[in-house]
Amino acid sequence: MSSRILSIDDDAGIRRSLGAYLEDCGHEVIEAADGRSGLEAFERGQPELVLCDLGLPDMSGLEVVAALHARSPDTPLIVISGMAAVGDAVQALKRGAWDYITKPIADFGVLDTAITHALERAGLIRQNREQQARLEAMNRQLAHTLRQLQEDEEAARTLQQRLLPPDGLGFGAYRFTRRLLPSAYLSGDFIDYFALDGQRIGFYLADVAGHGAASAFVAVILKTLVGRYLRAHVRQGDATILHPAQTLAQLNRDFCAEGLDKHATMLYGVIDQREDLLCWGNAGHFPYPLLHDGVGARFLAHPGRPIGLFENARYQEHCLHLPQRCRLLIASDGLLELLPPQPRAGRAEGLLPHLDDVDGSLENFMQRLGLEQQAERIDDIALLEIDRHG
Amino acid sequence: MSSRILSIDDDAGIRRSLGAYLEDCGHEVIEAADGRSGLEAFERGQPELVLCDLGLPDMSGLEVVAALHARSPDTPLIVISGMAAVGDAVQALKRGAWDYITKPIADFGVLDTAITHALERAGLIRQNREQQARLEAMNRQLAHTLRQLQEDEEAARTLQQRLLPPDGLGFGAYRFTRRLLPSAYLSGDFIDYFALDGQRIGFYLADVAGHGAASAFVAVILKTLVGRYLRAHVRQGDATILHPAQTLAQLNRDFCAEGLDKHATMLYGVIDQREDLLCWGNAGHFPYPLLHDGVGARFLAHPGRPIGLFENARYQEHCLHLPQRCRLLIASDGLLELLPPQPRAGRAEGLLPHLDDVDGSLENFMQRLGLEQQAERIDDIALLEIDRHG
Repeated sequence: MSSRILSIDDDAGIRRSLGAYLEDCGHEVIEAADGRSGLEAFERGQPELVLCDLGLPDMSGLEVVAALHARSPDTPLIVISGMAAVGDAVQALKRGAWDYITKPIADFGVLDTAITHALERAGLIRQNREQQARLEAMNRQLAHTLRQLQEDEEAARTLQQRLLPPDGLGFGAYRFTRRLLPSAYLSGDFIDYFALDGQRIGFYLADVAGHGAASAFVAVILKTLVGRYLRAHVRQGDATILHPAQTLAQLNRDFCAEGLDKHATMLYGVIDQREDLLCWGNAGHFPYPLLHDGVGARFLAHPGRPIGLFENARYQEHCLHLPQRCRLLIASDGLLELLPPQPRAGRAEGLLPHLDDVDGSLENFMQRLGLEQQAERIDDIALLEIDRHG
Repeated sequence: MSSRILSIDDDAGIRRSLGAYLEDCGHEVIEAADGRSGLEAFERGQPELVLCDLGLPDMSGLEVVAALHARSPDTPLIVISGMAAVGDAVQALKRGAWDYITKPIADFGVLDTAITHALERAGLIRQNREQQARLEAMNRQLAHTLRQLQEDEEAARTLQQRLLPPDGLGFGAYRFTRRLLPSAYLSGDFIDYFALDGQRIGFYLADVAGHGAASAFVAVILKTLVGRYLRAHVRQGDATILHPAQTLAQLNRDFCAEGLDKHATMLYGVIDQREDLLCWGNAGHFPYPLLHDGVGARFLAHPGRPIGLFENARYQEHCLHLPQRCRLLIASDGLLELLPPQPRAGRAEGLLPHLDDVDGSLENFMQRLGLEQQAERIDDIALLEIDRHG
């Protein structure tokens, strides 16, 4: 290991012998005869190690040590002191010297070892620092890129939230409550409900295969299409949106036309408030809607084909009259992950005991399933509750 | 600094005096009288530093040094050797000893300094390693989260690509070439073109304010709505999509109904192949479309209101007959960032010299603007070229 060493000593003889020895060891030597020129030589020469005699003519060796340490604490500094001045050597160590050697130097091997150890230690400190700087720079870069992407998805999430209907919206005796708990920033589950006219309410819950941004894109496509059918009804009297089976068939055709290689399950329903009549179609959605009719809870079990797989899929329409007091719960299949493992259909049965009260709240239902606590989710969870109070 | 030190020496007197000194210094001392028990004591006691005499009765001190170094290279190991055995000491250093001290130990201060330096160095090595491990763990965590988000956006990007029409699609004498260069994973610019019937082609370029996932969402909404108008034409004979001004007005109404607090500029056009008639509407899109009619290039400069700002915005329709040989270029305003800074309208003028050849290619146009080289972009860039060859 060849290094540039600054040797500060007022004794020309010692400087010469030290210098000769160090050069023999392969080091480059800068010499200074007093404190002030030593400090100057340090600034000019940027040595990697300093040997400093404590007995200097112009300033105290301890002052030189303190000045060098303040200037460059990571440059190893070895003081050389007379046998009688061990107290000074200890003072020097306290002020930042790394080691000390007593004069006269009988065994240059001791000096050599001290220099080697000091340079090794300085190397480790430098390595420490460089490594840390490198890793920190990498961290900063990663964190920066991550923040950009997070902000990007956060903005998209805000937009997705804007597409949702108000939570707790009431239509006459019916109140719609919704929860959307994405597994990532963006959700492939989606919920909507809207007045079709003064008498009827349309609603749906869609669950796009997968999750994250790509599935959220598809959810946006579904929402846009349904929104378009709604406006076609409101503005042009197109009746499609009033009929669940027709709506799902139309949606499936429109969606297949996009050629997206994605599919979704969906439950679309219409409630006629005057008749208290619920009609719905199920496009492969599971778990089935859960109805509590005041007496007990049961699934409205009707299978159907998902949206986006079969261009000419047909859908069935089911209708039932709703009692004065009832509660309809529709959930995406992410909810089933919270239930004890069983065959898929069997697992959904596990939801029934949690919907034992027609007056219970969605909040309470979620608490019983431990849904609030779940921080990390492997799938999106969407919940839509429709509540009729007599 | 108090440490657990293992002292291996067969001389009980030296062990005692060494032990007493080290305990006075505040260290905890484990003693062993030969190599084998020294190695055992090392395993059992997990010392932080080892002092090892080179002249042991049962195995050579050098073997002990090699064994300890192999077992735990980061534990400082100081050998103690007789004055006469400096050669052995050098051998020991080569096999992993950190330092050596000659016996008899006249000055225990030398031993103390050697121990202190060795422990400091071991501490630095440990600190190095811990710091590195900590930063690396942080890096891994960041990289993992980043990878998840990147995969998420990458999947959405793939989906967005699927929504684009094939590049280089031909309709009779007309060929459509497109480029979409997002500034992030996802683009708020979008391009589409499609046959309206055997005679007419519809096309548009939309530029949603902002960029990234949220703007891409909005682009998907626009694309879905236009797709719906197209199918309404194909299936139900709805003529909206045939008329640029009507299409933009309908799109604006439908888009405003979503209440997204976003807006977009868009140019929608229809080409009648039999008549070689181009009709278009401009919803705030800038730069204006550039037409090279075989003689020279000019802007088709007609302003209009962006989509999503004014619910009842009206749009104008402009028509012109296309010559046998012509070239129409539509670009999003991200392209203007590549031109020398000037007032916005003036800057667009800078595009004209690059469209000086009616037979030029989009590739060539991009090269002249240095568009291929641009790796990092502050805005999305979309380019649509419609080429008529006689």
